[in-house]
Amino acid sequence: MDFRKRFIVEPGSKFKLADFNPADKGQHENHQAAAAEIARHADVLARLQYKLYAEGKRSLLIVLQGLDASGKDGVIRHVMTGTNPQGVNVTCFKQPTHEELAHDFLWRAHHHTPGCGEIMIFNRSHYEDVLVVRVHNIVPRSVWSLRYERIREFEKLLVQAGTQVIKFYLHIKPEEQLNRFKERLDDPHRNWKIRESDYIERKYWPAYIEAMEEAIRETTTKHAPWFIIPSNHKWFRDLVISSILVNKLEEMQLQIPKPAVDLKAIRLRYHSAKIEQDHNAILEVKRT
Amino acid sequence: MDFRKRFIVEPGSKFKLADFNPADKGQHENHQAAAAEIARHADVLARLQYKLYAEGKRSLLIVLQGLDASGKDGVIRHVMTGTNPQGVNVTCFKQPTHEELAHDFLWRAHHHTPGCGEIMIFNRSHYEDVLVVRVHNIVPRSVWSLRYERIREFEKLLVQAGTQVIKFYLHIKPEEQLNRFKERLDDPHRNWKIRESDYIERKYWPAYIEAMEEAIRETTTKHAPWFIIPSNHKWFRDLVISSILVNKLEEMQLQIPKPAVDLKAIRLRYHSAKIEQDHNAILEVKRT
Repeated sequence: MDFRKRFIVEPGSKFKLADFNPADKGQHENHQAAAAEIARHADVLARLQYKLYAEGKRSLLIVLQGLDASGKDGVIRHVMTGTNPQGVNVTCFKQPTHEELAHDFLWRAHHHTPGCGEIMIFNRSHYEDVLVVRVHNIVPRSVWSLRYERIREFEKLLVQAGTQVIKFYLHIKPEEQLNRFKERLDDPHRNWKIRESDYIERKYWPAYIEAMEEAIRETTTKHAPWFIIPSNHKWFRDLVISSILVNKLEEMQLQIPKPAVDLKAIRLRYHSAKIEQDHNAILEVKRT
Repeated sequence: MDFRKRFIVEPGSKFKLADFNPADKGQHENHQAAAAEIARHADVLARLQYKLYAEGKRSLLIVLQGLDASGKDGVIRHVMTGTNPQGVNVTCFKQPTHEELAHDFLWRAHHHTPGCGEIMIFNRSHYEDVLVVRVHNIVPRSVWSLRYERIREFEKLLVQAGTQVIKFYLHIKPEEQLNRFKERLDDPHRNWKIRESDYIERKYWPAYIEAMEEAIRETTTKHAPWFIIPSNHKWFRDLVISSILVNKLEEMQLQIPKPAVDLKAIRLRYHSAKIEQDHNAILEVKRT
């Protein structure tokens, strides 16, 4: 099915996160029922990524936003692992550096946008500058409230240069976040990640939701839409995102370029019997 | 088996590429016989990469060199595809830009070295500045001949900062290169890559071999060794490289960090029955 229609936030709509159910799992009973489909999407994605790379004219920027433990890392690991690391990159937006803070808020994002033929994943993104920055009053409203228009314009610049922009908000319930924190406590491979500040940050949950809702309403556009991904079920999250990415890349009608040379001529010139001599000549030189 | 001993170039040895057989396939008959081992290495690599990332103190730089069609892209696709794109990056060294040319020859390489917890693959590398540059007389001998020492020092700098450096030369016969060019001609998914210049470049084969041999002799060190990878058989190449990488990462005895918090205290404070109230409070605010 086409998940795009179901989970897109239409520009101009009266969008509320509460209208989307984080525990949605579509027509599927459980992971087993969706696993084959997710695997098929991964194969198709790997093929389409090769075409994007071969074509070398356009690119794809994937923005992942979501609260802590909503599954941003998981999407990267599960949905993108089958792709070729040569054409897929990830930028994690952490605390900005001094140099980054010395520039406008889009400077660091701009530096990391994908080149022709590439896929770039933003794990968090320039949207942090209207989220955490707003929730914690790092800059005043008079500053962050101007940023929505700047973001829309920035993304338009990218789109006009051939970069497709697609934005996913990973939607979980606060109880699910707490469950996942608990799982980390019980898992010796992951309990090094636990910081008490993650728990403390939970009290800002409603403020984050409010900031996210406004950001999404203000920046969902025809050329760079937001999708709300139900993410309580990790497998459903992966199914929806991989499906939307496949649809997006298929829609681009990527074309492997025509050969730049006359294949027949090359065949005659370099792959005829005469070529044996060429070889032998090379090897002769090597032996001396 | 430990392929490291077999394919390493020892510092100070009278190394010749001719001493290594590009068609070597070890104890294995064919791909089928090695496939399970390669798959096992891929799993282990994915686990070790997670540990490297979790530890966050050291990093790994993999240098891939080899003539056209020797399989650099193939190694990246086959050996590294199972890893998490978040921790593995690839830098392709193409024609240097004006800005890069305006700096010393190690400037662009330095910019792309891996950060703590990361794996970086150099697809071609700073070694091009003693290879193509020498073969085509782009700079005089008086310039490139000083570079070996600079490279050794540069790699020592990285190693002392916690970056493991490992260098692979993909060794093929000239006939095998021609076979692979022919396969590209016959494959509509790949024939867009063919350029006549690749054929013309073949006449420099002996010059490249000579330059490579000297580069390897001059820069194989205890801390940043070169390995000669027999690459006529793609599967054997993948087997050897994945095996050497697994050995290398295992030797590092990577440790997932201990939790930074008191797990018991966190459990009591946030995961006891009382937490239900906390939840409800959050949800209550959301509903208003």
